Amino acid sequence: MIKTDILIIGAGPTGLFAVFEAGLLKMKCHLIDALPQPGGQCSEIYPKKPIYDIPGFPEVMAGELVDNLMEQITPFEPGFTLGERAENIEKQKDGSFIVTTNKGTKHQAPVVVIAGGLGSFEPRKPPIKGIQKYEEKGISYFIKDPEIYRDKKVVIAGGGDSALDWSIFLADVTKEVSLVHRRKDFRGALDSVEKVEELSKLGKINLITDAEVVDLKGKEKLESVLIRHKDEARGEELKTTDYFIPLFGLSPKLGPIANWGLEIEKNAIKVDNSYDYQTNIPGIYAIGDVNTYKGKLKLILCGFHEAAIMCQSAYQRINPDKKYVMKYTTVSGVNGFDGSKKEAKREVIKSIN
Amino acid sequence: MIKTDILIIGAGPTGLFAVFEAGLLKMKCHLIDALPQPGGQCSEIYPKKPIYDIPGFPEVMAGELVDNLMEQITPFEPGFTLGERAENIEKQKDGSFIVTTNKGTKHQAPVVVIAGGLGSFEPRKPPIKGIQKYEEKGISYFIKDPEIYRDKKVVIAGGGDSALDWSIFLADVTKEVSLVHRRKDFRGALDSVEKVEELSKLGKINLITDAEVVDLKGKEKLESVLIRHKDEARGEELKTTDYFIPLFGLSPKLGPIANWGLEIEKNAIKVDNSYDYQTNIPGIYAIGDVNTYKGKLKLILCGFHEAAIMCQSAYQRINPDKKYVMKYTTVSGVNGFDGSKKEAKREVIKSIN
Ligand SMILES: Cc1cc2nc3c(=O)[nH]c(=O)nc-3n(C[C@H](O)[C@H](O)[C@H](O)COP(=O)(O)OP(=O)(O)OC[C@H]3O[C@@H](n4cnc5c(N)ncnc54)[C@H](O)[C@@H]3O)c2cc1C
Ligand SMILES: Cc1cc2nc3c(=O)[nH]c(=O)nc-3n(C[C@H](O)[C@H](O)[C@H](O)COP(=O)(O)OP(=O)(O)OC[C@H]3O[C@@H](n4cnc5c(N)ncnc54)[C@H](O)[C@@H]3O)c2cc1C
Repeated sequence: MIKTDILIIGAGPTGLFAVFEAGLLKMKCHLIDALPQPGGQCSEIYPKKPIYDIPGFPEVMAGELVDNLMEQITPFEPGFTLGERAENIEKQKDGSFIVTTNKGTKHQAPVVVIAGGLGSFEPRKPPIKGIQKYEEKGISYFIKDPEIYRDKKVVIAGGGDSALDWSIFLADVTKEVSLVHRRKDFRGALDSVEKVEELSKLGKINLITDAEVVDLKGKEKLESVLIRHKDEARGEELKTTDYFIPLFGLSPKLGPIANWGLEIEKNAIKVDNSYDYQTNIPGIYAIGDVNTYKGKLKLILCGFHEAAIMCQSAYQRINPDKKYVMKYTTVSGVNGFDGSKKEAKREVIKSIN
Repeated sequence: MIKTDILIIGAGPTGLFAVFEAGLLKMKCHLIDALPQPGGQCSEIYPKKPIYDIPGFPEVMAGELVDNLMEQITPFEPGFTLGERAENIEKQKDGSFIVTTNKGTKHQAPVVVIAGGLGSFEPRKPPIKGIQKYEEKGISYFIKDPEIYRDKKVVIAGGGDSALDWSIFLADVTKEVSLVHRRKDFRGALDSVEKVEELSKLGKINLITDAEVVDLKGKEKLESVLIRHKDEARGEELKTTDYFIPLFGLSPKLGPIANWGLEIEKNAIKVDNSYDYQTNIPGIYAIGDVNTYKGKLKLILCGFHEAAIMCQSAYQRINPDKKYVMKYTTVSGVNGFDGSKKEAKREVIKSIN
């Protein structure tokens, strides 16, 4: 059982910044995310694109913003359960909650904060019969640790940025990487498309266009995939492989959280925005894209504010007898749980004769 | 008469960022501030100190944050009335407002946003009889344009950062700069105190400690100041000067705004935080440190959120017949009023054979 002060579901920009605000109030956080990496939409959908409306950044890459947030929260040593989806919640007699993931990991905390954005990112699976049988036995829908594929044979399917970028990356890692795409047209950043073209010419990526993976073979685990060419003359070919990685994008689903007894409106969780962004269940808050209220804007900067306000209320719930007086970071510094200390240089009082 | 879409009172971080959010919605802004420079508390009180809780900045100097915000809003060409205090407001028949400053400058807009922070920064004046007589005739309480003092004789009074920093700066500009301080102890950044000490030894700053300016002389304008030494043996000296600049700090006063008929609580303006941060007078909003509501935090990041939400409501007021659909800056870019355009690189669709 993982125990913490605030359990945050969703490690997007909102969930990450909540760790910082909680840390200033000496509360520890643990984050659960279905994705293998933190950053939510920013990391998964548009890491290399600029955002222009983060206050104080005339321009910042979405991935860079996430890196900055990760650096900012480091002193508060957040815990992470990544690649798992929060599935169930049970209220305990002592008022705390236990949240269990789809992989059975259990987390307990007096306060649960849902920062789930548009929902848990679930891979779009290709419609191949019996694909479930090989999941985690040769089939992955996203790449968590590329080292797993070292010196293996890998087939990637897809025609977008993920498929392009991972084919490029794995060209140097695997024994053989094949990229299968239904069309000849790829949609992605110009340099990625060009790089794949170049590596294909050099024979480092085995590019198979106008074709689809239509069947999977193997006893205990995946052993080969059946590829069908559009060109009937070429027909079908059986390709020996250790791994098949369909990268057809992820689509967010509010999913299991929709059944937690929370008030839902427009596929989002209703909260009390006139005070602390708490849901209809005391002790459960919802911040960022996942919540809704009159006038709601699904913007990153709004999630930041909601995180700060939420933490004040969470503090009162966790410490009913204490009164917290807000202090400016400039004046009181940042005291990390890791023993680090940031503080402004003091003014001096000095005599001149 | 200065006309604009949104008239913002207060050019602190909140007011500045409101210009950006308004610009995205194609609304033009004009800002009034009592201080000679934008940035509010950040520029006036702690420009060289780090802030640690601006999301995405593990550390940023307050002055740097203001510079970044100024850069971010440049495309939206805000107008500024600086060094003037918003004094009166009059509602017009057409629903718009006219705001007049203490210097008589008039501004008209359909929406007024008060982003006045802790209030208008007013200089602490030394208790010298008849000092008003010389205001703008040789006496300034802050320095707007240092060029005015080129090759002049200047007497500065004070013992804090402003007095230290301006004495250093003016040492190279003026014919003679004297720094008069009641004590020998100065309170400021270590390098500023040391620099003044050094310049004093080099004879570039005429340092007069344990002394006070007690009287002012001059016919049409200031001609000399009377300095009284603590050490009775030294007595008084009359010092010829073109300018006397007492820098005893600024203290914020809600001031005239308190009489505009707005609902005031705890020296701040009550707003509807369950929706759009509007005050009890329709068309007048209050955002940032100047407003209050249940759970309010006087933090910079909260002012940013309030600015974004306020702009949606202001848009509806200015364009009652249009419906605005929020767009992501990453997707739609930033189209400046100055003709500039920022946008993310497009994805390409490219064929590979
Ligand atoms: C192309 C694009 C451009 C954008 N441009 C801008 C812009 O210019 N400015 C701006 O402000 N915003 C922009 N946005 C929106 C911005 O990305 C979101 O507002 C922001 O990501 C919301 O942050 P969040 O942390 O609330 O949620 P998210 O970033 O969506 O993160 C939520 C996380 O929660 C996880 N999660 C959800 N449910 C579960 C569960 N049950 N178990 C485990 N994990 C779960 C998800 O996997 C996800 O990682 C853009 C979005 C897109 C797609
Ligand atoms: C030492 C110190 C450290 C701080 N540290 C932090 C920190 O770490 N993190 C954080 O988030 N916040 C911090 N703050 C608070 C932060 O500076 C404020 O929250 C922020 O400045 C508020 O911005 P604002 O734009 O709402 O108001 P302000 O910055 O106060 O700006 C308001 C402006 O309005 C002007 N004004 C008011 N009335 C009138 C009028 N009638 N006519 C013309 N002009 C008018 C004023 O002159 C002023 O320039 C700190 C503050 C101080 C003093």
